[in-house]
Amino acid sequence: MSQAPLDLTRRTKEFIARSVLPSDDEFDGDVMAAGGSELRHRLQEAARAAGLFAPHAPLEHGGLGLGMTARAPVFEEAGYSLFGPLALNIAAPDEGNVHLLSHVATAEQKAQFLDPLARGHCRSAFAMTEPSPGSGSDPTALNTVATKADGGWLLNGRKWFITGADGADFFIVMARTSGEAGDAGGATMFLTAASAEGLTVGRHVPTMDRSMIGGHCEMTFVDVFVADNDVLGGVDEGFRYAQVRLGPARMTHVMRWLGAARRAHEVAVQHVVTREAFGSRLSDLGMIQQMIADNEIDLAATRALLLSACAELDAGDRASKATSITKTFAAEALDRVADRAMQMCGGLGVAADLPVAKIARELRPFRIYDGPSEVHRWSIAKRAVRTIAGAQHG
Amino acid sequence: MSQAPLDLTRRTKEFIARSVLPSDDEFDGDVMAAGGSELRHRLQEAARAAGLFAPHAPLEHGGLGLGMTARAPVFEEAGYSLFGPLALNIAAPDEGNVHLLSHVATAEQKAQFLDPLARGHCRSAFAMTEPSPGSGSDPTALNTVATKADGGWLLNGRKWFITGADGADFFIVMARTSGEAGDAGGATMFLTAASAEGLTVGRHVPTMDRSMIGGHCEMTFVDVFVADNDVLGGVDEGFRYAQVRLGPARMTHVMRWLGAARRAHEVAVQHVVTREAFGSRLSDLGMIQQMIADNEIDLAATRALLLSACAELDAGDRASKATSITKTFAAEALDRVADRAMQMCGGLGVAADLPVAKIARELRPFRIYDGPSEVHRWSIAKRAVRTIAGAQHG
Amino acid sequence: MSQAPLDLTRRTKEFIARSVLPSDDEFDGDVMAAGGSELRHRLQEAARAAGLFAPHAPLEHGGLGLGMTARAPVFEEAGYSLFGPLALNIAAPDEGNVHLLSHVATAEQKAQFLDPLARGHCRSAFAMTEPSPGSGSDPTALNTVATKADGGWLLNGRKWFITGADGADFFIVMARTSGEAGDAGGATMFLTAASAEGLTVGRHVPTMDRSMIGGHCEMTFVDVFVADNDVLGGVDEGFRYAQVRLGPARMTHVMRWLGAARRAHEVAVQHVVTREAFGSRLSDLGMIQQMIADNEIDLAATRALLLSACAELDAGDRASKATSITKTFAAEALDRVADRAMQMCGGLGVAADLPVAKIARELRPFRIYDGPSEVHRWSIAKRAVRTIAGAQHG
Amino acid sequence: MSQAPLDLTRRTKEFIARSVLPSDDEFDGDVMAAGGSELRHRLQEAARAAGLFAPHAPLEHGGLGLGMTARAPVFEEAGYSLFGPLALNIAAPDEGNVHLLSHVATAEQKAQFLDPLARGHCRSAFAMTEPSPGSGSDPTALNTVATKADGGWLLNGRKWFITGADGADFFIVMARTSGEAGDAGGATMFLTAASAEGLTVGRHVPTMDRSMIGGHCEMTFVDVFVADNDVLGGVDEGFRYAQVRLGPARMTHVMRWLGAARRAHEVAVQHVVTREAFGSRLSDLGMIQQMIADNEIDLAATRALLLSACAELDAGDRASKATSITKTFAAEALDRVADRAMQMCGGLGVAADLPVAKIARELRPFRIYDGPSEVHRWSIAKRAVRTIAGAQHG
Repeated sequence: MSQAPLDLTRRTKEFIARSVLPSDDEFDGDVMAAGGSELRHRLQEAARAAGLFAPHAPLEHGGLGLGMTARAPVFEEAGYSLFGPLALNIAAPDEGNVHLLSHVATAEQKAQFLDPLARGHCRSAFAMTEPSPGSGSDPTALNTVATKADGGWLLNGRKWFITGADGADFFIVMARTSGEAGDAGGATMFLTAASAEGLTVGRHVPTMDRSMIGGHCEMTFVDVFVADNDVLGGVDEGFRYAQVRLGPARMTHVMRWLGAARRAHEVAVQHVVTREAFGSRLSDLGMIQQMIADNEIDLAATRALLLSACAELDAGDRASKATSITKTFAAEALDRVADRAMQMCGGLGVAADLPVAKIARELRPFRIYDGPSEVHRWSIAKRAVRTIAGAQHG
Repeated sequence: MSQAPLDLTRRTKEFIARSVLPSDDEFDGDVMAAGGSELRHRLQEAARAAGLFAPHAPLEHGGLGLGMTARAPVFEEAGYSLFGPLALNIAAPDEGNVHLLSHVATAEQKAQFLDPLARGHCRSAFAMTEPSPGSGSDPTALNTVATKADGGWLLNGRKWFITGADGADFFIVMARTSGEAGDAGGATMFLTAASAEGLTVGRHVPTMDRSMIGGHCEMTFVDVFVADNDVLGGVDEGFRYAQVRLGPARMTHVMRWLGAARRAHEVAVQHVVTREAFGSRLSDLGMIQQMIADNEIDLAATRALLLSACAELDAGDRASKATSITKTFAAEALDRVADRAMQMCGGLGVAADLPVAKIARELRPFRIYDGPSEVHRWSIAKRAVRTIAGAQHG
Repeated sequence: MSQAPLDLTRRTKEFIARSVLPSDDEFDGDVMAAGGSELRHRLQEAARAAGLFAPHAPLEHGGLGLGMTARAPVFEEAGYSLFGPLALNIAAPDEGNVHLLSHVATAEQKAQFLDPLARGHCRSAFAMTEPSPGSGSDPTALNTVATKADGGWLLNGRKWFITGADGADFFIVMARTSGEAGDAGGATMFLTAASAEGLTVGRHVPTMDRSMIGGHCEMTFVDVFVADNDVLGGVDEGFRYAQVRLGPARMTHVMRWLGAARRAHEVAVQHVVTREAFGSRLSDLGMIQQMIADNEIDLAATRALLLSACAELDAGDRASKATSITKTFAAEALDRVADRAMQMCGGLGVAADLPVAKIARELRPFRIYDGPSEVHRWSIAKRAVRTIAGAQHG
Repeated sequence: MSQAPLDLTRRTKEFIARSVLPSDDEFDGDVMAAGGSELRHRLQEAARAAGLFAPHAPLEHGGLGLGMTARAPVFEEAGYSLFGPLALNIAAPDEGNVHLLSHVATAEQKAQFLDPLARGHCRSAFAMTEPSPGSGSDPTALNTVATKADGGWLLNGRKWFITGADGADFFIVMARTSGEAGDAGGATMFLTAASAEGLTVGRHVPTMDRSMIGGHCEMTFVDVFVADNDVLGGVDEGFRYAQVRLGPARMTHVMRWLGAARRAHEVAVQHVVTREAFGSRLSDLGMIQQMIADNEIDLAATRALLLSACAELDAGDRASKATSITKTFAAEALDRVADRAMQMCGGLGVAADLPVAKIARELRPFRIYDGPSEVHRWSIAKRAVRTIAGAQHG
């Protein structure tokens, strides 16, 4: 992996402030209201012009080739605006898909799917989650099936909460190729164009967050044909490959949301230095200082855990424990930061006149998306029991 | 005060489920999207037909005359739907204004303002809060002034976060009649029609909550004339009268939000009994059971504090300590309940498909509205120091 | 039940301050260091002289006959000193045993066991908890067995954490009379003198708390004979009768610990008004005020829940839900109160120079004793699922 | 600074388990009960024999010369036993004094004080804290004065909470040499033998913790003469030099307590895998798993913050913000870990039969010692306001 270009973090920060925040604030972080695809093209053009585009993508696909540790401060600065990740082409799910494809795809698949994706010429989505009973918190409940056909596979099933699906040019679809719902194996990943016959993107699930282009959509697959060449990785190895994507994708989520939470905090601090009550500047009141300090502590602990997990990932480890702990802590800590920022701003904290309530609205779902805290805690605990109490337990 | 009619709580519960919840859920708790004034008239007509209208208002003004303790379970049932208080004519700020007017207004003022308000023939607002620097968390920072004129007063100043202002027929306006911003006295309450010359209702502050008819608005007063007859209570005694309104109004807020939070909890419990993950029904998993139990505890503690404060109020006490403690605990506890309910519902918890996210959105501002938790804690602590450490301190 | 004598709460408060607190503070709440049985006799004599003895016991057994609601403020005042409950003869486990015997015992048993116990002429213990695997958090795991013998029963088994066992004159012993460990029925309660052959009180479990006379002891039963007349209640109905004791006993625990926590809080408030740092009196600093306010809130919420549960009990209800919620909330809230009080007192908060650290030390185990919070939450959640989601679930 | 010898962490871990934990557990972590000075000599001899002695001390003074980052895992292993730091000669306050002297002392002072201290030939204490009103949370309130005399200084004043004072061979005393209590400057550090005339070590403050050799003592200084040669660092620069000690000392505290908390956690995990309730192994119950996971998260976040702060210190930064955040987070997080461990162990969690309650007892004061959380938060908040809102504020 390459070195971060000189001053990349600082330049990203300046770019976000100058070129991205204005649209974000004007439209309360609502990506469709702010222009949708048109917004995306405009912001990405500006990022290219600034030399900041695709910091995570491999050099041969037009990116800056940063590893996980080098990404962290850059992604944090991008996340300072809800539209920043879109501008730099490092928003979920494209960013994670670039990561996955660069590790798993064949040369042909890279040419066809990875290269245009990394360069921002198209959008993608990762179709794993299913409505109940199906692959939700428990991925092995996978119900979408792929049955072997001549020269390929036929996909049938339903998905939902597929981020970015509306307008995506292609999908990575997880489907069961052997075994039954509940089995730990038997899943396979398929690449399929959005235009494939039988593939339908349905309604947007009406979630509280509004900054993700393409929404979180329902999808149906009816006899969607995928050629053998478009199987991503090995047949029946989908869950294993999903892990390649999952750990790093969690950490880049944390990087981006860390930036957003930091913004809420900074806006709140700037607010309390300008207001008075009961004869004191708000920022001189102990209860306000406690919220400021708790925010600083939560931000610092999130950053420390993040860098620690990134170092493990850069060293080639799976880092399942570290990424699970970091994701869980971060999702809750950053939610607290946004909540305290709202409280510090009083009435304006729950209004769109300041950019705090919108950040809180975008952050809250992260305690559920990418594995609810409860599922991560369950997995952390089981691992701890095995490690501490020995092989016979857990 | 009168006895609660037989079965009033049960009948309110049934009425809400049958006649109010459907609109609430169809329009995600957005009162304007659901019809605004048209919705209000329709729901109130239904409540009148069911004999449930205005349970708090004096009998002579068409109400059921319930005291605070008797109101609690009825208001809780009304609050089970975000539109329930509107239906029963017990929504803020009208409900608090009915209380205030019935205690402070002259016979003429009662005829002109209280009676039609209690009967739902008009709407009102309470114009106290001002933009910074002004009367916010610290009411004594009051900047709106009333200067004596021939036969009345001229009001000048700005207000904001005036709940229900858009479409209100009259206002109770707090303005300074002597002293300076920061003085503990010198405020007076004025009654003025919305049609008064010089009175302007401006934009809605774009808050996260959307269930309050008439929004939270900005207002300006430019030489608004109020006749001497329309002074509410004594000149320079506004802060004292505001207390008459404030304590009970906080408690009725708690009653209504208690119902809303209980709904979020019940929806979440009903959700987790129908879902499985990792081979268990969600409701059988310990981490889910912990959230269920914590919700039950928070709801029970809120209800216990509420009834205890209501008993003090019904006994004629000011109950400042009890209402302050109850408001602070309740706002935080009910916010926790809604947050856990979201978490229990997973992805659906942050989507409009279930009525949980909307309740969370409406509840969050209550930790700020009607005195932020920090201001209440400051006042609770000062009182404790005086009580415990004696008169020489505090 | 009788009315509380006039001014009983105030007189109890004064008695505790004058006659009990000095010994408590001199010996850091360590009942053995303060004199053990000699202390008990001295304090109880003083309480009798003051007309405050045994407020809970039936009138015919020398008590004041107070119901649960009337007990609450009196027991809270008694709990203000760690030795107060001992002085008034309302300490665990005697207080709960008086309650149980007065509801379940035969006339002869009352004469032999209840009367001297209520009058303070002897001490008792309740022998239910067993070492693992046995009757701990899960009472049905009961392993101590009673086998039928001629004219009575033979008890065999081990117990531990038997509060007050060392020096107790008699025991109420829970033993299995039918079924197997894990069965919900088949337990019976037996009355046995401490002098019974085969009954041994072993070492004190070295717990952090030190204010309970007789400690928390290990016991063994080897062929201990109990005559048929000394079966308490019906054979095989022990678990049902245990419920008679359990709910009220939890509430009287809450009453006493509420007093102790309130003392820690008051001491801390009195401390912070006398200290300065950084140019301010500590009690004027926002972070200290926040702790003061949070303590006030926790104390008020505990008291409100307690009175609500007592009202249910006085009305003759089992009140399982209310007592479970109240016990769980109170144990955690009062622990928080003591913890904040320590923090407010700085270095002195963790030293014996102030009576705060000792109160924290005594309070902490209450989150475990009488059902750990986790077991109560489990039961609260199961009940909520049944109530909300209907009979087919839970 | 030197590299850590190969396998130092692993060897430390084994040494602690084999040679230190047995005494710790036999005597419930009470250092005096376990032998006091005799214990110290025995354990230190064993550590020397194992080649593990004084990992932090400079090579030329017989240590291993580790920097802060290298110390972290070694100190954590030492802290696994409450007596481990004493064994390795890295207990407070000697460890911090070695650090301070190696940075500030003259060559002669190093020979006289540092070298024997680093080699374990003597003990020391750091006499800064004073009873109220004096140098407590607010060091500038310093009341002990040093007045110039012929060839030296005369010290007069009172100190308390002086850790390790009883039995210390020499003291580093902070005294005011100019200005008045409250001034930010004017303090000086003095080296004085315990045998100095006029220096008295008084009673041990009866704190809840019992693992610190020499206790936390009161001291008085009456005309104690200190020669000019024994001034440590520059006159009037005491507060500045104290910072040299403070940041690293806070971090080594965190390292040691991290080990202690980890032990409590591991003991609890080992406990819950062996117990059953309601038909499940405790470690399979969700509420227990949640406590396990929360402990893992708190330990990981503490470690991540710690290493991040150590990296700053090793780079030569003052790292005031990082050490303040890390100390505050760690003290609270590790207290939570110990508290959860107690809860997981049920009745045994609050008894001396397991080593959990003693760890909780030792950890609690760390939220107060070395700067209460409130003072750190105040300082963190002020710094944040300056950084975020600019030079004109804060």
